[in-house]
Amino acid sequence: MNIRSNPDTTRPAVTTGALPSSQKIYVTPDAAPDLRVPLREIILSKEAAEPNLPVYDTTGPYTDPAITIDVNAGLKRPRTQWVLERGGVEQYQGREIKPIDNGNVSGEHAAAAFKAYHQPLRGVGDSPITQYEFARKGIITKEMIYVATRENLGRKQQLERAEAALADGESFGAAIPAFITPEFVRDEIARGRAIIPANINHGELEPMIIGRNFLTKINANIGNSAVTSSVEEEVDKMVWAIRWGADTVMDLSTGRNIHTTREWILRNAPIPIGTVPIYQALEKCDGDPVKLTWELYKDTLIEQCEQGVDYFTIHAGVRLAYIHLTANRVTGIVSRGGSIMAKWCLAHHQESFLYTHFDEICDLMRKYDVSFSLGDGLRPGSIADANDRAQFAELETLGELTKIAWDKGCQVMIEGPGHVPLHKIKINMDKQLKECGEAPFYTLGPLTTDIAPGYDHITSGIGAAMIGWFGCAMLCYVTPKEHLGLPDRNDVKVGVITYKIAAHASDLAKGHPAAQLRDDAVSRARFDFRWQDQFNLGLDPDTAKAFHDETLPKDAHKVAHFCSMCGPKFCSMKITQDVRDYAAGLGDNEKAALYPAGHVGMTISGVIEDGMAQMSAKFRDMGEELYLDAEKVKESNRALS
Amino acid sequence: MNIRSNPDTTRPAVTTGALPSSQKIYVTPDAAPDLRVPLREIILSKEAAEPNLPVYDTTGPYTDPAITIDVNAGLKRPRTQWVLERGGVEQYQGREIKPIDNGNVSGEHAAAAFKAYHQPLRGVGDSPITQYEFARKGIITKEMIYVATRENLGRKQQLERAEAALADGESFGAAIPAFITPEFVRDEIARGRAIIPANINHGELEPMIIGRNFLTKINANIGNSAVTSSVEEEVDKMVWAIRWGADTVMDLSTGRNIHTTREWILRNAPIPIGTVPIYQALEKCDGDPVKLTWELYKDTLIEQCEQGVDYFTIHAGVRLAYIHLTANRVTGIVSRGGSIMAKWCLAHHQESFLYTHFDEICDLMRKYDVSFSLGDGLRPGSIADANDRAQFAELETLGELTKIAWDKGCQVMIEGPGHVPLHKIKINMDKQLKECGEAPFYTLGPLTTDIAPGYDHITSGIGAAMIGWFGCAMLCYVTPKEHLGLPDRNDVKVGVITYKIAAHASDLAKGHPAAQLRDDAVSRARFDFRWQDQFNLGLDPDTAKAFHDETLPKDAHKVAHFCSMCGPKFCSMKITQDVRDYAAGLGDNEKAALYPAGHVGMTISGVIEDGMAQMSAKFRDMGEELYLDAEKVKESNRALS
Repeated sequence: MNIRSNPDTTRPAVTTGALPSSQKIYVTPDAAPDLRVPLREIILSKEAAEPNLPVYDTTGPYTDPAITIDVNAGLKRPRTQWVLERGGVEQYQGREIKPIDNGNVSGEHAAAAFKAYHQPLRGVGDSPITQYEFARKGIITKEMIYVATRENLGRKQQLERAEAALADGESFGAAIPAFITPEFVRDEIARGRAIIPANINHGELEPMIIGRNFLTKINANIGNSAVTSSVEEEVDKMVWAIRWGADTVMDLSTGRNIHTTREWILRNAPIPIGTVPIYQALEKCDGDPVKLTWELYKDTLIEQCEQGVDYFTIHAGVRLAYIHLTANRVTGIVSRGGSIMAKWCLAHHQESFLYTHFDEICDLMRKYDVSFSLGDGLRPGSIADANDRAQFAELETLGELTKIAWDKGCQVMIEGPGHVPLHKIKINMDKQLKECGEAPFYTLGPLTTDIAPGYDHITSGIGAAMIGWFGCAMLCYVTPKEHLGLPDRNDVKVGVITYKIAAHASDLAKGHPAAQLRDDAVSRARFDFRWQDQFNLGLDPDTAKAFHDETLPKDAHKVAHFCSMCGPKFCSMKITQDVRDYAAGLGDNEKAALYPAGHVGMTISGVIEDGMAQMSAKFRDMGEELYLDAEKVKESNRALS
Repeated sequence: MNIRSNPDTTRPAVTTGALPSSQKIYVTPDAAPDLRVPLREIILSKEAAEPNLPVYDTTGPYTDPAITIDVNAGLKRPRTQWVLERGGVEQYQGREIKPIDNGNVSGEHAAAAFKAYHQPLRGVGDSPITQYEFARKGIITKEMIYVATRENLGRKQQLERAEAALADGESFGAAIPAFITPEFVRDEIARGRAIIPANINHGELEPMIIGRNFLTKINANIGNSAVTSSVEEEVDKMVWAIRWGADTVMDLSTGRNIHTTREWILRNAPIPIGTVPIYQALEKCDGDPVKLTWELYKDTLIEQCEQGVDYFTIHAGVRLAYIHLTANRVTGIVSRGGSIMAKWCLAHHQESFLYTHFDEICDLMRKYDVSFSLGDGLRPGSIADANDRAQFAELETLGELTKIAWDKGCQVMIEGPGHVPLHKIKINMDKQLKECGEAPFYTLGPLTTDIAPGYDHITSGIGAAMIGWFGCAMLCYVTPKEHLGLPDRNDVKVGVITYKIAAHASDLAKGHPAAQLRDDAVSRARFDFRWQDQFNLGLDPDTAKAFHDETLPKDAHKVAHFCSMCGPKFCSMKITQDVRDYAAGLGDNEKAALYPAGHVGMTISGVIEDGMAQMSAKFRDMGEELYLDAEKVKESNRALS
């Protein structure tokens, strides 16, 4: 379907321009007049008797017609100023780029280096550097003000409805406020329940927050491999992914040109970029895990800290003692990072150097405020291996490491599975919250069945919606190509849209204030046959319009008060209008009088027994009763045991 | 993606031939040697050190190379013999087909009539006719034996594992046995907890069962409309839908040629066909609901009973008194049948004739064993309208009508929503079980958000997996075109595959015996890099293979022990093999000895405290502990409150 929906692309080869019937708007928070927090406003048709709809915007400058995009120059770096003005950092001569950083690639195989060079910053002394340290000291940073403004989208105008939504939802013990203040953001970060992945060297970043009490986020993985794809493709994929709603992007590149690819991505990325440093370290020793050393790994961390990577996946929970627990699994160890470390531990008969050197890793990452994404190297790779001892032993160790990282001043989130059947998803979520002190959970899917290769965006979207509802803070997308190949541009879009659906469905269920505003806007457009508004309010206007045009291509049909399902002759929506006109004209007594005794919401046997008076009373009650109160919902969920 | 995956089609224009690397096999139950119950066996490669995998087969004769398909002649009708031999029926001169049955279509617009005519059967006197009546009398029919054999697929060979699966699952009070006997089928039908939709005039039918304690089923909607599509397309869609796994098909045709289209579909359908008779009745009065009469409707029911329709959607729960409850909804009444009846009730200021004549409808449907699918005419059409009083008032009436239909000897299932956010799905399921005496629930989705037109197979697949887990017996698919247009061939396939995923995910979670066998087979193939087996074991081998070929086209790569994600240089699966070889060689003491004190699953601080002996003990414990027992799972689900 996505072939249809590719927007025009401009040179350089990334997709720019506003989404259909949308405009970029910037909000200036009272607390920091120099900030410009972006949002997207969906412009509705004249027929719509309602204001335009503001929505959360991850697209960065690429959708702002006022900004000229030059991928070769990279994005502006306003955030560097925020970092400098609060002090505690120094600019210094960074580590020199070595040929091995790009796999000793040369000649035609070497990707063009990114021209501009920015001297890196790092923290000095004991003054706070990380968002966690500022939060602990009670200091509200501009990043915190920025994300508060961003998360509040639509809430201010909707406070009443927001409180109703909260009351109606089931958040399983989350603490979602009706309105987000910078102080609330600070407090959640100080408690370790949320993170703002924001390397001080990522000046291009538009800060965002990951935590159970904020909007559920999604991540898109990109990256070239030894087998396929180029630097240009990866930059294009990154821009394409955020266009459709990716909140963060992980660069999982392997093979050659790793450093250069990452530099191009970072300098053009308004969203946090995550990596798995062990991948590059492995390339530096010819792909042989046995040759890995702490020094080589540490050097790679410094290289990436200086570039501005916002979070590192570090598989420090894969301990020597846990490895044999995977021996009897159906699919063993499926995490690349996990298996690299397993191989190293076995070959050397030693504890993982990521575990034994964890303190040093913390000290290093703190200097740049790189957030931890503690990797689940022993996650299950199949339904059969879900929730086994290997997975949970590692999770317990991740809990131990989380507390160490906090003590060192670092921000932390925890990675999760993977492959888990529906009935075992909650036990994963609950155990993570318990073991890791409510640090944000960041899961891959999970896939709820293994029988549909080619459709794993769907098998996993189901699990993602559920674990998001149960408390997962960020959902890592899975594309249709999972287990089969590397995602291309279309796969990236399908994966992102699918995960936006999962994240939004979980926000609705948790009772996130204002989450339902967009659903309601679509529903009203649908009911009014405002086709263009329905397309434009959706996650993918291009595909929606293309589908509609397949059956009713004429432009006239865009305003036609019927659809191809029922045809022009008859339409249920029209009848509803009759019902409204009809009901509008009636008072209670008239209503009651309309219905002959016994024909009002009672059993056939009841017809004989009941009289008119009772019936009209019963009838009025029915008219008033609603099933929308929170108690009934919670009661029904309690019944799950 | 589906363009890639169209198999060859033969004339007549329906898709025939076996699925990739699959063969049709027939099982003969001991209890009825003349029955041939079909299943599909997936043939694995020589490299696979395991037997071929049998899977449930909905494809009918179309995938049996031994059978020549002639759409013009229709399928063989072996089941007619079963009906005749048990007696209680008479063959008679059926109702004459009138021009109005096809909307008075003539000339070029008239579709070619189906040639063969079969005189209809109907029940006579009080002897049992319906499966419900036989079940109540303690009689086991061939249909019951047939479905028992069909449902047991893989269980006999797997009884031990089956019991383990049951123990592990969470079925919310369902009563799923490790092994299905014909007597269990009879008992479930007698209790009204399951139905076998099987009109005595549908001789082409391969019986299937719908009930909470059996495999979760899916339905695919097809049908032409006044705006688009032809008879040929609809027959092709039906065959295409069952090829990918649809258990039943509903013909929702409107406009002209309704009777002829349905005849072509029925005579070529090995699966139950459902309809919404009010659609045709409406066509008979020029699409004006006000002109509808009981006589016109009754005549339409007879017409369709004689053709062999297996279940009717009847919106008898849309009562005059409930209509005004929809007046303040965001999307009012979205069910076509519901809005037709609402219009009629308002226009005449009378109770619905479907409600007042319900007894007669039962008597009529009983004579042909047409099952009720009691329609939810007031289902919500948006997240905003979910679980409101209008919906639940109707559901309560459906419960009342269920008991009447049972007293009349009819089989009954109940239709459900629609649009429901995650946290309100269980309240729907629980209320249906309570109000309708555990009659099978049959829901459309539900969609869990309204913000993704063009992706409603996904927004609804999420809700479908959950409600299936909670106890829904059949899931009505939603295609990507929902709300935008009529599904074409590709949309039908995407919808069916998505719902097969949802149904299977819920079976896994309920602990359905043998459900996990297919997941495990795929996982083993994945781990062994048996690419062809992985493709062939999946729901859509064509798409899986096409995706793989996009990145690694060479045939050599089909056996390559690596994939495009990691490339040939490094692969996590290979490392796992090292782990196994390694672990295989070790005894407990050796294992313990391997690890220096303090490096075995303990905190860093613990290093100092603990000694060698304790550690190896702790280590052994961990090795044995597993998180797979049912109690932990149930406990975690109890935590949902």
